[in-house]
Amino acid sequence: MTEIEIGGSKRGRIAYSFDDIALVPTRRTRNPEDVSTTWKIDAYEFNFPIMAAPMDSVVSPEVAINYGKLGGLAVLDLEGLWTRYEDPKAEFKKIISAKPESVTEVLQQIYAQAIKPELIKERIKEIKSAGVIAAAALSPRTVVQHSKAVIEAGIDIFMIRGTTVSAEHVAKEEESLNLKKFIYELEVPVIVGGCVSQQAGLHLMRTGAAGVLVGFGGGAAHTTSDVLGIRVPMATAVADVAAARTEYLDESGGRYVHVIADGSVGKSGDISKAIAMGADAVMMGSGLARSTTAPGNGKHWGSEAIHKDLPRGQVVDLGVVGTLEQILFGPSTSSQGALNMVGALKKAMATTGYSDLKELQRIEVVINAAKA
Amino acid sequence: MTEIEIGGSKRGRIAYSFDDIALVPTRRTRNPEDVSTTWKIDAYEFNFPIMAAPMDSVVSPEVAINYGKLGGLAVLDLEGLWTRYEDPKAEFKKIISAKPESVTEVLQQIYAQAIKPELIKERIKEIKSAGVIAAAALSPRTVVQHSKAVIEAGIDIFMIRGTTVSAEHVAKEEESLNLKKFIYELEVPVIVGGCVSQQAGLHLMRTGAAGVLVGFGGGAAHTTSDVLGIRVPMATAVADVAAARTEYLDESGGRYVHVIADGSVGKSGDISKAIAMGADAVMMGSGLARSTTAPGNGKHWGSEAIHKDLPRGQVVDLGVVGTLEQILFGPSTSSQGALNMVGALKKAMATTGYSDLKELQRIEVVINAAKA
Amino acid sequence: MTEIEIGGSKRGRIAYSFDDIALVPTRRTRNPEDVSTTWKIDAYEFNFPIMAAPMDSVVSPEVAINYGKLGGLAVLDLEGLWTRYEDPKAEFKKIISAKPESVTEVLQQIYAQAIKPELIKERIKEIKSAGVIAAAALSPRTVVQHSKAVIEAGIDIFMIRGTTVSAEHVAKEEESLNLKKFIYELEVPVIVGGCVSQQAGLHLMRTGAAGVLVGFGGGAAHTTSDVLGIRVPMATAVADVAAARTEYLDESGGRYVHVIADGSVGKSGDISKAIAMGADAVMMGSGLARSTTAPGNGKHWGSEAIHKDLPRGQVVDLGVVGTLEQILFGPSTSSQGALNMVGALKKAMATTGYSDLKELQRIEVVINAAKA
Amino acid sequence: MTEIEIGGSKRGRIAYSFDDIALVPTRRTRNPEDVSTTWKIDAYEFNFPIMAAPMDSVVSPEVAINYGKLGGLAVLDLEGLWTRYEDPKAEFKKIISAKPESVTEVLQQIYAQAIKPELIKERIKEIKSAGVIAAAALSPRTVVQHSKAVIEAGIDIFMIRGTTVSAEHVAKEEESLNLKKFIYELEVPVIVGGCVSQQAGLHLMRTGAAGVLVGFGGGAAHTTSDVLGIRVPMATAVADVAAARTEYLDESGGRYVHVIADGSVGKSGDISKAIAMGADAVMMGSGLARSTTAPGNGKHWGSEAIHKDLPRGQVVDLGVVGTLEQILFGPSTSSQGALNMVGALKKAMATTGYSDLKELQRIEVVINAAKA
Repeated sequence: MTEIEIGGSKRGRIAYSFDDIALVPTRRTRNPEDVSTTWKIDAYEFNFPIMAAPMDSVVSPEVAINYGKLGGLAVLDLEGLWTRYEDPKAEFKKIISAKPESVTEVLQQIYAQAIKPELIKERIKEIKSAGVIAAAALSPRTVVQHSKAVIEAGIDIFMIRGTTVSAEHVAKEEESLNLKKFIYELEVPVIVGGCVSQQAGLHLMRTGAAGVLVGFGGGAAHTTSDVLGIRVPMATAVADVAAARTEYLDESGGRYVHVIADGSVGKSGDISKAIAMGADAVMMGSGLARSTTAPGNGKHWGSEAIHKDLPRGQVVDLGVVGTLEQILFGPSTSSQGALNMVGALKKAMATTGYSDLKELQRIEVVINAAKA
Repeated sequence: MTEIEIGGSKRGRIAYSFDDIALVPTRRTRNPEDVSTTWKIDAYEFNFPIMAAPMDSVVSPEVAINYGKLGGLAVLDLEGLWTRYEDPKAEFKKIISAKPESVTEVLQQIYAQAIKPELIKERIKEIKSAGVIAAAALSPRTVVQHSKAVIEAGIDIFMIRGTTVSAEHVAKEEESLNLKKFIYELEVPVIVGGCVSQQAGLHLMRTGAAGVLVGFGGGAAHTTSDVLGIRVPMATAVADVAAARTEYLDESGGRYVHVIADGSVGKSGDISKAIAMGADAVMMGSGLARSTTAPGNGKHWGSEAIHKDLPRGQVVDLGVVGTLEQILFGPSTSSQGALNMVGALKKAMATTGYSDLKELQRIEVVINAAKA
Repeated sequence: MTEIEIGGSKRGRIAYSFDDIALVPTRRTRNPEDVSTTWKIDAYEFNFPIMAAPMDSVVSPEVAINYGKLGGLAVLDLEGLWTRYEDPKAEFKKIISAKPESVTEVLQQIYAQAIKPELIKERIKEIKSAGVIAAAALSPRTVVQHSKAVIEAGIDIFMIRGTTVSAEHVAKEEESLNLKKFIYELEVPVIVGGCVSQQAGLHLMRTGAAGVLVGFGGGAAHTTSDVLGIRVPMATAVADVAAARTEYLDESGGRYVHVIADGSVGKSGDISKAIAMGADAVMMGSGLARSTTAPGNGKHWGSEAIHKDLPRGQVVDLGVVGTLEQILFGPSTSSQGALNMVGALKKAMATTGYSDLKELQRIEVVINAAKA
Repeated sequence: MTEIEIGGSKRGRIAYSFDDIALVPTRRTRNPEDVSTTWKIDAYEFNFPIMAAPMDSVVSPEVAINYGKLGGLAVLDLEGLWTRYEDPKAEFKKIISAKPESVTEVLQQIYAQAIKPELIKERIKEIKSAGVIAAAALSPRTVVQHSKAVIEAGIDIFMIRGTTVSAEHVAKEEESLNLKKFIYELEVPVIVGGCVSQQAGLHLMRTGAAGVLVGFGGGAAHTTSDVLGIRVPMATAVADVAAARTEYLDESGGRYVHVIADGSVGKSGDISKAIAMGADAVMMGSGLARSTTAPGNGKHWGSEAIHKDLPRGQVVDLGVVGTLEQILFGPSTSSQGALNMVGALKKAMATTGYSDLKELQRIEVVINAAKA
């Protein structure tokens, strides 16, 4: 860990975002038809390593079903509109049509409604009954209260997702969530995060999680750096947590915990970069918020934007670019990395000569001296 | 101190601004309710470590009283309009409504009026009589002349603030201010600065000051780099002077001099960054110039903008974002780090697992490879 | 090879683009009249080291003839409109007049037309019959199928050009092109690429190629970084492949393979930078797409923009700046490096004191701390 | 000289511009009244170290006289309009009113007129007769032909100024200028340049020159990097040539050759930065082109913009900011470093504690991690 002097005795590492790095083609090439993008976690196998993020602007029960049928894994946010409202159509409409200067207040008001346990069950069952793998997320604050409903509804993959989730939450007044005990007692695989350092990742892996999210929560327009002073350059964060995976693999005698890049994965090129840094899969928000069936209709917001007294994000208008299928498999009629995400990943692998995702993690990368 | 070759035998350090760095969450988290932002200097304790800067666009006697009642420390500029005019309402109006191309001349003209010792006393007494801690600032050039009036009025905390204040001012013709002697003889705690290097900071600490300001004077739109060629990247400067605090703590056998970041602290995220670099508190100008009761009504200027023959700053139109209380404690309906400053600091501490400001000084930081 | 830690155990080199570097004048100067820009490859000699790129917006058979008469080498794309359509006038018109939002689809549709072997022969013969050296390009995918027609038509210099061409293409289902065998059996000199690393370049040199293209395909507006995550900073790539040339020169007992910078050479200043990095010649696209006789009439696109399901480039409107002769030899009435490319190269050599291209490869360069 | 790997075996230094660096205040301060900006070269002493550049948009005979009376040294361009036209008023008007798209052609046409030796004499005598020190410049190409007229007219300081002037110009067909012999035989002090490296500077010092210009010619909008691929970050270049001064001081047994920063000195802050890098004085173009009496009336162009077949600069519209006196001595009503250049230099010296220019060369500087 090379640290640089900032001033006095304070030192820091240089940290890199996906924009700061790029993949380097090597001396070997392949055909895109000959590469595999298969991703397998626990007992489940998916055609591609792109999860749909638990955000109201990305995943509705309907989207989750379609996404599953296309071979991927979508995660429903159990603290979103679908568990607060029987039929959230009117609420979506209000958010989508709100003016920029008042949209934060609109969000704060709409999300003030309480979460209803019976809706949690209903939504999960709806997805399950369509025959696809059901995944859904709660934050650490609500997970104890609602997890029973989630399990009873027959969830396949459970996600605990917060801005930062630590294995060691220190609280004075209330009983803190004991992640290790909680995950051990659950009968389904759990994916947990975000975290951004090797040590934090290692601690989360020791809880028994099947996968760890790398990132700091948030949608495409999060303003964490302005508001909190915290910023997580993703290339460095993913590589750090991937190193924790290796450390834990040895420590545990062979348990492989998946590393999932959750943040700053917006363009197809970011997917191959995340995997090059050591990720097993990525979580995609903004890229999928642009489908014709996305609940936000091209508008996009994260849970950090709805915070009641300290919002740290905005509603951004991304626009609609194509169907979910076209976003994933093309054909692309754009050239901005917005369509044919899976095709682009295959092309990147083929061009650089790698035949599966695990191999691609070893690719050589360069650091751009100056961005573009 | 790692120096890099610039050319020939000239070398220099790389220096970092707050924008170049970011805090890194660790493996532990806390609840925002469980962290303390208390700041204590000399005999005085404050609820949060954010001082209101002695600038006419930020602090009036009325603002100073309100700010004190909210638990903070505001500093009145004793060389501003309030000590030059019995009722400066008309002057504020002229500045606020001046056109950009002529505003510098308007400032130069208005500030040409002489400072009145009786108004110095009156303003301080007004603040004192409201029951809050009274703090006010003079520059090194006028401090000898006016300090008697300040002390007599019963000031609690005295500030000597200039672009650069050195413990070793060399002058040919006039008697130079002997800072050490002057501070020793005063009966109130003195905060002095700005300074920007470890050595300069150490020399100021040796004068007996209770606190040292780190920075190079100036408001949000100072143009010191263009005009003088001088620029002070604040992250490096704060860390350097914090190192002087450690050095002086040892040398003095335990006297702890507070390090206050005075400059480039505009967004809530800058507060946690400053403390991460080693600051005990920050001085905030532009962030507080945006309150509904700010005397500049959203316009903002520093003392360097009024210089009669070499102005080095501008009047900037920041706009009004909320009440003073809302800026400090929320609730926020914005996502740009402009509201709920104290809440944001608490959230940053909680998310990264630190329970008080002294602990937060130890947090790990990263250097951004490229500013987003 | 100095690598830097990105995170965990992942490391990468810093890679530089032409914009990141600049030539440094030395203590000697010359007159522009006294320097030579002659470039000789195989049995052919050219007045200047600037090839015209095999792109439909740059080279038509007519342009190839004119360019040859001006002393340069133009390469015709044998997978472009001229071999798909007997008379592509209408197709060019459609592309040129298409709206930005639909132009990708227009390209995809027009380029869906099959390549006609008889047109391949016809176009090459047309160029040959004008008495200039004929050069033309195919991609690796079509080269086996069409090379016979190319050779029979009497091509002088043959180019195999793809996004990435490797000496070691691994394919499952179809017989892969054996570059080494293929080039050995051809009776004309072959230029092959792109490649971007020393090792990949070395492998291409071992195939018996007369020249190697450095780059990643693509026109002025390629979006490979966004779509695939792959980006090739050209200064580093050219220097790396130039190092392969030295390595191969030794290994082969004296065979000198030309290194041709193919990408990011748009302004005249980029030519001298490419040669400073070790290139023997450059391939120019956008710079020549701006001539009065360019087939795209100032609009410019690369083969990566026409891909049927994963386009990675756009049609950019560069505008027309002058005749082909004026672009090459001036006089210039602009100051942006768009006119008098050869004169600018001569001036750069004279000012820095070098008399031929081989010498210029040794010039000292600096890395710009920040791009102006 | 720390070099960094760019690729293969190619290496380069990182080079810094004035924007990349900044001065650091130290622990001592002074009063602006107590510092001296006196600059002495050969037998001549000036009140401030700012030369007015030999450019038609900056110095006319009338400006040269006024500038001299204000205590500075202005240099007349003897290849400009004043020696080509008896009364160039109409030509100035044409350039000033030309449209951006045709101005290069207008310049090329107007400057095609021949230089008249009798006008050279007349202009110098005009300046001399006003009682100020007369300085004028020729380029290396014309210096042999016209120097006799210059000397006969009684010039005080002679300047040989070109894009790059080397002590070792290699020419085939014509007799090359032998700088050493030429300068030795002249009876007046000679300032010669530009040069940009320690070695080139050292060679120029050995010619017997009294001063050496550091830079690459050109006005505020030169496009050398785009056109030629050559770029000279000034902070590094000045520091390198300053190192040559030390080397030559030793080698010559005590001859001190002045180093003059000629390029990128536009704002007052650039003056103190240039001196901090080791310059003895600066040459200012754009900053002085903005006076009410500047011949270009706020428009500005350099000799590289008029080149007949390879122009490398533009006419830029800087606007008028004040009288020549106000630009030099204030009072300033702006805050952008455009007015009160000498006052700003004094303030920079006072704030950082240095009392004369030679001392200021030793000041500590920082490298900005990111520009502003």
